Amino acid sequence: MRLALQWAERGLYTTSPNPHIGCVIVKDGVVIGAGVTQPAGQDHAEIQALKDAQRRGFDVRGATAYVTLEPCSHYGRTPPCCDALVRSGLGRVVAAMEDPNPLVAGQGLARLAQAGIAVSSGLLADEAHELNIGFFSRMTRQLPWVRMKTAASLDGMTALHNGASQWITGEAARNDGHAWRARACAILTGIGTVKADDPQLNVRAVATPRQPRRIVVDSRLDIDPAARVLEGGGTWIVSAVTDHEREARLRDTGAEIITLPNAQGKVDLPELMRELARRQVNELHVEAGTKLNGSLVREGCVDELLLYLAPTLLGDAQGMFALPALENLAGKYPLKFHEARMVGDDLRILARFY
Amino acid sequence: MRLALQWAERGLYTTSPNPHIGCVIVKDGVVIGAGVTQPAGQDHAEIQALKDAQRRGFDVRGATAYVTLEPCSHYGRTPPCCDALVRSGLGRVVAAMEDPNPLVAGQGLARLAQAGIAVSSGLLADEAHELNIGFFSRMTRQLPWVRMKTAASLDGMTALHNGASQWITGEAARNDGHAWRARACAILTGIGTVKADDPQLNVRAVATPRQPRRIVVDSRLDIDPAARVLEGGGTWIVSAVTDHEREARLRDTGAEIITLPNAQGKVDLPELMRELARRQVNELHVEAGTKLNGSLVREGCVDELLLYLAPTLLGDAQGMFALPALENLAGKYPLKFHEARMVGDDLRILARFY
Repeated sequence: MRLALQWAERGLYTTSPNPHIGCVIVKDGVVIGAGVTQPAGQDHAEIQALKDAQRRGFDVRGATAYVTLEPCSHYGRTPPCCDALVRSGLGRVVAAMEDPNPLVAGQGLARLAQAGIAVSSGLLADEAHELNIGFFSRMTRQLPWVRMKTAASLDGMTALHNGASQWITGEAARNDGHAWRARACAILTGIGTVKADDPQLNVRAVATPRQPRRIVVDSRLDIDPAARVLEGGGTWIVSAVTDHEREARLRDTGAEIITLPNAQGKVDLPELMRELARRQVNELHVEAGTKLNGSLVREGCVDELLLYLAPTLLGDAQGMFALPALENLAGKYPLKFHEARMVGDDLRILARFY
Repeated sequence: MRLALQWAERGLYTTSPNPHIGCVIVKDGVVIGAGVTQPAGQDHAEIQALKDAQRRGFDVRGATAYVTLEPCSHYGRTPPCCDALVRSGLGRVVAAMEDPNPLVAGQGLARLAQAGIAVSSGLLADEAHELNIGFFSRMTRQLPWVRMKTAASLDGMTALHNGASQWITGEAARNDGHAWRARACAILTGIGTVKADDPQLNVRAVATPRQPRRIVVDSRLDIDPAARVLEGGGTWIVSAVTDHEREARLRDTGAEIITLPNAQGKVDLPELMRELARRQVNELHVEAGTKLNGSLVREGCVDELLLYLAPTLLGDAQGMFALPALENLAGKYPLKFHEARMVGDDLRILARFY
């Protein structure tokens, strides 16, 4: 199963909106086939592993397949993997987890069992869950897994008051940040960051065949149609106003406008998260400024902070999250540390809200 | 030598102002004696180890002594350890480091070699240095090793604007903080913290036979003679003014007044550090408020930050260090991460200025 999880990782940047699954087929203690989910519409991991064994001349009858998620039992973009596994004559299927997709949810393993295949699930389930945390979030909560990335000094400052922020963290941290971008289905920022930094919001520092969707929260449709985040088209602009003329100009860049006002005339952020899940966003990577960061935290939209702390102090400067002063400590936002490790000279922290 | 370092650690809370040294005597692959530096004026580790071997009935002639610092060659509060080692008939002495004390500085090993004992040094030197980082600092820089402890939320806030700060970090972190207090020769705070929190500034959460010296930076001698930090006497109050009446009242509590004004009428903090080294302070533990913290950092008096980050966000609140806004990022204060580990639910970071 560890090997199957390693295979699953190979699909980290490419399988969206499908989960990235790995499958390893073992017979008489020998790995005879392995595979990983291909981009959406192509082979799932199980089919790849069966083909791999066949190509290498092995007979899979009686063999055991280790798969990091329960094989699918429904027709989606591809036929059910279960049917192929049954036809193959496998003796046993070990899944790390049951599929949370209500279209599967145990039916895959049940169908295999009915066909006389020995089945079990739960092996290395935690690791399998982490690898597809966004897919599980979308399936079970109808929300993406929202990861907010920020880089700050040890005293929590992201930029000087004059805006200077290049570079607080080192190159290794910046490259690592791009690896997290690459695994996300979409990257979200705010109009403030677009105006201040004119970011491309794409993956450059690591190789990927797929670029995540770019999303800009822009309540008043203030974005300049020449902004780099619109280059190449496909960007989603989320607004709280209707302005046919501006919308038309932005659509000309290939952007799509999503209008989601709340009662205060701002973008309804919780509703945006639900909309993104409907649009099959599993992992949402947020790289925004202090204001949008603060709003997303305050409105309970963030699941995880990805925080790069640089070994420096900046003193009086711009913080990470614009959050109002609390009356008492009971009002603090509770997190749990998930991981802390060095990335180059910087400290990378993953902390989760609960 | 690993075992000798473990013995040295047993003296962490007690040997000040001497370094805490461990010694293990090995003969034919068997540990026949071990010891640790006793409180100042009593046995050094080598003598303890020789006595231990004797008490256990072993003949140390021809044996090897592993000692975490070069044996002393001078008369201090006790006679030179070298002489005792030579008399004992040991065959070999392995030191982790040479003694930086200019009264020793290689002369100890030289004297042993002259007496026909095989000597070497450098084994696990880094570990030995860490264990006595304050002693080495005082000997080589004529400055204490200054460790500034602070506890903050993940967004770098230590207290709400209304002062509420109990408790941001958890019990495990608070107890761990007391262990760091216990190993320090002295604990320093500012008059702001004394007025706001009336701390005892002693070690309570861990057992120790020795309490560190308490020091209060109080430029104008504003401290209330009933302040808890003065209880039991022995507190040093560092001021920038002369006021015979107030000084007399404070001396009545058993406190000592150190007057060290700078040109601005504040306490001359760099001069205070030199004075503390002259007074044999090896490790200075700072627990102060944002203002004194900022002054100490700005004036280059801090060697290390001991930072407990709680898994929470506080938003608009009080930061860790009052440092003025920078004009550009080149002015940032450079640190290097030394360690990051979980203590209970909190993340403990050690970072060093360089």
